[in-house]
Amino acid sequence: VAATSQRPAKKSFKALFRVYRGDEIALGPGKVELLEHIAQTGSISEAARRMKMSYNRAWLLVRTMNRCFAEPLVLSSRGGDQHGGAQLTKSGRDVLRFYRQLETKFSNATRQPVRELLSRLKT
Amino acid sequence: VAATSQRPAKKSFKALFRVYRGDEIALGPGKVELLEHIAQTGSISEAARRMKMSYNRAWLLVRTMNRCFAEPLVLSSRGGDQHGGAQLTKSGRDVLRFYRQLETKFSNATRQPVRELLSRLKT
Repeated sequence: VAATSQRPAKKSFKALFRVYRGDEIALGPGKVELLEHIAQTGSISEAARRMKMSYNRAWLLVRTMNRCFAEPLVLSSRGGDQHGGAQLTKSGRDVLRFYRQLETKFSNATRQPVRELLSRLKT
Repeated sequence: VAATSQRPAKKSFKALFRVYRGDEIALGPGKVELLEHIAQTGSISEAARRMKMSYNRAWLLVRTMNRCFAEPLVLSSRGGDQHGGAQLTKSGRDVLRFYRQLETKFSNATRQPVRELLSRLKT
């Protein structure tokens, strides 16, 4: 018999940001995380592994980003081949920086209403 | 034969905010819209109709909110009966106000990085 938990419920707040080009999600939390892993590892396959994502899925996300932005965000040295290296372009680094700025400005600006909302929840 | 569109793709940015109590979504865009319609119409069934949502679905959302918050957000005069009236409590009005503050503060604070991100998209 499992004991019923007496701990108070965890209260949390989540914000999700997405950039669209037409119906396509050009950028969102998953793609941003992938960009960061590519920047850190220099490899799409290693970035995919760290996100527990298939290489094909990661490559699809990279292709979508590169298709949606005016300049590609990721360059892979062998056209997406699993064994080649990959790196962010200047445009990729810029986009990553703007997204992080967005998150920081958001957190700083909304601290008070978020705290108010959370404080109204049942413990 | 459909003509191919020559219009540039629509660029857009979306932010989604959610408040959780444990695993449950206490508040999000749908519930906030429902609260506003209840405030405007004084009726869960009319609010549901305006959102093209079944009454049962709307009632479920109201129950979830009332369960997650320390004070109920919605009072319905006949315990949820479709023919009774409904109104926001003081707590419901507060929560709605905080959520709108959150959205406004967010928009004001993030205008610049959002503009930068959108400007990098292909037209």
